[in-house]
Amino acid sequence: MHSYLELLEKINQKIAASTYGQKPAELYDPIEYMMSLGGKRLRPVLTLMGCNLFKEDITSALPAALAIEVFHNFTLVHDDIMDNAPLRRGQETVYKKWNMPIAILSGDMMLIKAIDFLAETPNSSFNALLKPFNKAAAEVCEGQQIDMNFETTKDVSHEAYIEMITLKTAVLLGASLQIGAIIGNASEADAQHLYEFGKNIGIAFQIQDDILDSFGETAQVGKMIGGDIAANKKTLLLIELLAAAHKDDKKALENLMQASNEVKIPGVLNLYKKYQIKEFAEAEKQQYLTLAFEHLQAVSVQTERKMILEKTAKDLMERMS
Amino acid sequence: MHSYLELLEKINQKIAASTYGQKPAELYDPIEYMMSLGGKRLRPVLTLMGCNLFKEDITSALPAALAIEVFHNFTLVHDDIMDNAPLRRGQETVYKKWNMPIAILSGDMMLIKAIDFLAETPNSSFNALLKPFNKAAAEVCEGQQIDMNFETTKDVSHEAYIEMITLKTAVLLGASLQIGAIIGNASEADAQHLYEFGKNIGIAFQIQDDILDSFGETAQVGKMIGGDIAANKKTLLLIELLAAAHKDDKKALENLMQASNEVKIPGVLNLYKKYQIKEFAEAEKQQYLTLAFEHLQAVSVQTERKMILEKTAKDLMERMS
Repeated sequence: MHSYLELLEKINQKIAASTYGQKPAELYDPIEYMMSLGGKRLRPVLTLMGCNLFKEDITSALPAALAIEVFHNFTLVHDDIMDNAPLRRGQETVYKKWNMPIAILSGDMMLIKAIDFLAETPNSSFNALLKPFNKAAAEVCEGQQIDMNFETTKDVSHEAYIEMITLKTAVLLGASLQIGAIIGNASEADAQHLYEFGKNIGIAFQIQDDILDSFGETAQVGKMIGGDIAANKKTLLLIELLAAAHKDDKKALENLMQASNEVKIPGVLNLYKKYQIKEFAEAEKQQYLTLAFEHLQAVSVQTERKMILEKTAKDLMERMS
Repeated sequence: MHSYLELLEKINQKIAASTYGQKPAELYDPIEYMMSLGGKRLRPVLTLMGCNLFKEDITSALPAALAIEVFHNFTLVHDDIMDNAPLRRGQETVYKKWNMPIAILSGDMMLIKAIDFLAETPNSSFNALLKPFNKAAAEVCEGQQIDMNFETTKDVSHEAYIEMITLKTAVLLGASLQIGAIIGNASEADAQHLYEFGKNIGIAFQIQDDILDSFGETAQVGKMIGGDIAANKKTLLLIELLAAAHKDDKKALENLMQASNEVKIPGVLNLYKKYQIKEFAEAEKQQYLTLAFEHLQAVSVQTERKMILEKTAKDLMERMS
C-alpha cells in the first residue's frame, strides 16, 4: 500500500505529464496555470486510496484521479468568477489574470477534458464510472447555486445548510473514493460505504471550517478570525444561534449584524458563547465523523488496509483544529 | 425513412419529455427556458438522419440527438454572456433574464446533462460515441476563443478564418451526422464521409451567412444589411478585400472603417463590388458545397436514401440565399 505522500507524488507526476491542448493559447494556458497551482490534491489522492484498498497497482486509477482533479479545478475557475474572487492559493484567479470570457471558456474545456480523462480508464465499464462522476458533478453545481441563493435568503434552516455543504463539497469527496474503489473492483456495497465515508468526512470538514473561522487561531486558519461573522455569512454557527436565541438576544443579534466589525465580531462571539454554539457545532461534527468511521469499518477489507484512510481523515481534521 | 418535419417532431417530443432536475429552481429553470426557445433543431435532426440512413428505427438515436441539442444550447448560454448579447431567438438571453452566475452555472449543468443523455444510448459502446462528441465539443470551444481573439487581431488570414468557422460551427454539424451514423451501425468510412459532408456544408453555410449580411435582403436575413460592416467584423469578405485591395483602396478602406455607418456601409460595399468579393466568396462557398456532396456520394447506401440529406442542405442554403 502507498502513503499519502507517495500517492500525491503519483498524481503530481500524472498532472505534469498531461496535456490539454495547444491552440489557441488563450484557452489552454489558463488550464495549465490552474492545474499548476498545486494544493494537497485531496480528491485524486482519495481516488487512488479507494483503489489501493482493493488492489496493489493503482496505475489504472490515475486517469480517473486526474479527471476528478481537473473537474474540481473547473469548479474553482467558474466559482471564482461568480464570487468575484481575486486570489486562489495565493495567486491571481484565472478571470483576474486573463478575463471573464476566457475563464468561462477554459473552465468549460476543463469539464470536457475531465470526461475525456475518465474515459481513458483501462478495463472499466465507462458507464459504471460516469454515473457516480456525473451525479457528483451535477450535485456540486446544485450546491453552488444553493450557496448563492443563501446570500438573499433570510431564514436558512439547519437541514438546508447541511444539504448545501453536502452537495457543494462533500459528495465529490465521497465520489472520489467510490470511483477509485470501482476501478479497484470493489463490491458495490464496499464502494457505497466508501462514498458514505468520504461524504460524511466532508460534512465534518465543512462544520470544522465554520467553527475555526470564529474560534480558531489566525495562524492555523490562515485568514482573519471572524471573517464569516464580518460578512454575515450564514454558517452553521449563525444558523444555530438564530434558532436558539431568545427574543431579546435575537433582536440584539439583528442589530449587531448591521454594526461595524469592531462591534459585530466580539458581540456575535459573546452570543455564541452564551448559547454554547461552539459546543453544539462540535457535537454535530462528531456525529458526522462517527457515521463516517462506521461506514469505513463496514468496508470488507482487513482493518490495517483501512488505517490510511482513517489517518488521512484524522490528519486533515487535526491540521485544521 | 422519415422527413425533416417528422424527425423535428420526434426530437421536439423528446425534448418536451426530458427533465434536467428539480431543485434549486434557479439552476434548472434557465435550462428548461433555453430548451423551450425552439429553433430548427438542425443538429439533432442531422443525428436522426445520420442514423436513419442505415436503420429504419431511429429511436436509439434520440438520446444522442438530445445530447447534441443540449450541448449546442449550452454553448449559446455561455456565448451570450461572453458576447454580452441581450436577445436569443427574439427572447431574453439567460444571463439577461436571470444573471451572469446563473448563466454560467446552468450552462455547466447543461454540459453535464448532455454527457448523461449521450450515455443513455442503448446498445452502443459509449466510448465510440464520446470520442467524436468530445472532440467536437473541445473544437467548438477552440473556435469560440479564436473568434474572440479575432476582435483584437489586425491581420486575420483566409486560412485562419476558415479554421475558425470550421471549429466554431462546422465540426458540430459533422459530428451530429457522424454520431447518428455510428448509432445506425454504419461503417467507420461511411460515418467519416457523413462527418465531412456535415462539416463542409457547415463551412458553406457560414460563408453564405457572411455574403448575405452584405448582399442579402433585410426580409431574408432578419437583421440590418451591413451589420458586419458596421461592426468592422472580420468576415471572409473583409479579409478578402484587405488581401486584394491595391494600396490606395486599402488606405481608403482603413479610413472607412473609422467612419460613420452612413459613410462606411456604402463605401465598403462599393469596394466589395470593385474587387468582386461577392463572386469570390460565392466561388469559395461552392467549393465547400461540392466537396460536401462528393462525401455524401461516397456513403455506401442507395442514392435515394441520401436524397433527404441533399435536400436538407439545399433547402437550408436556399432559405438563406
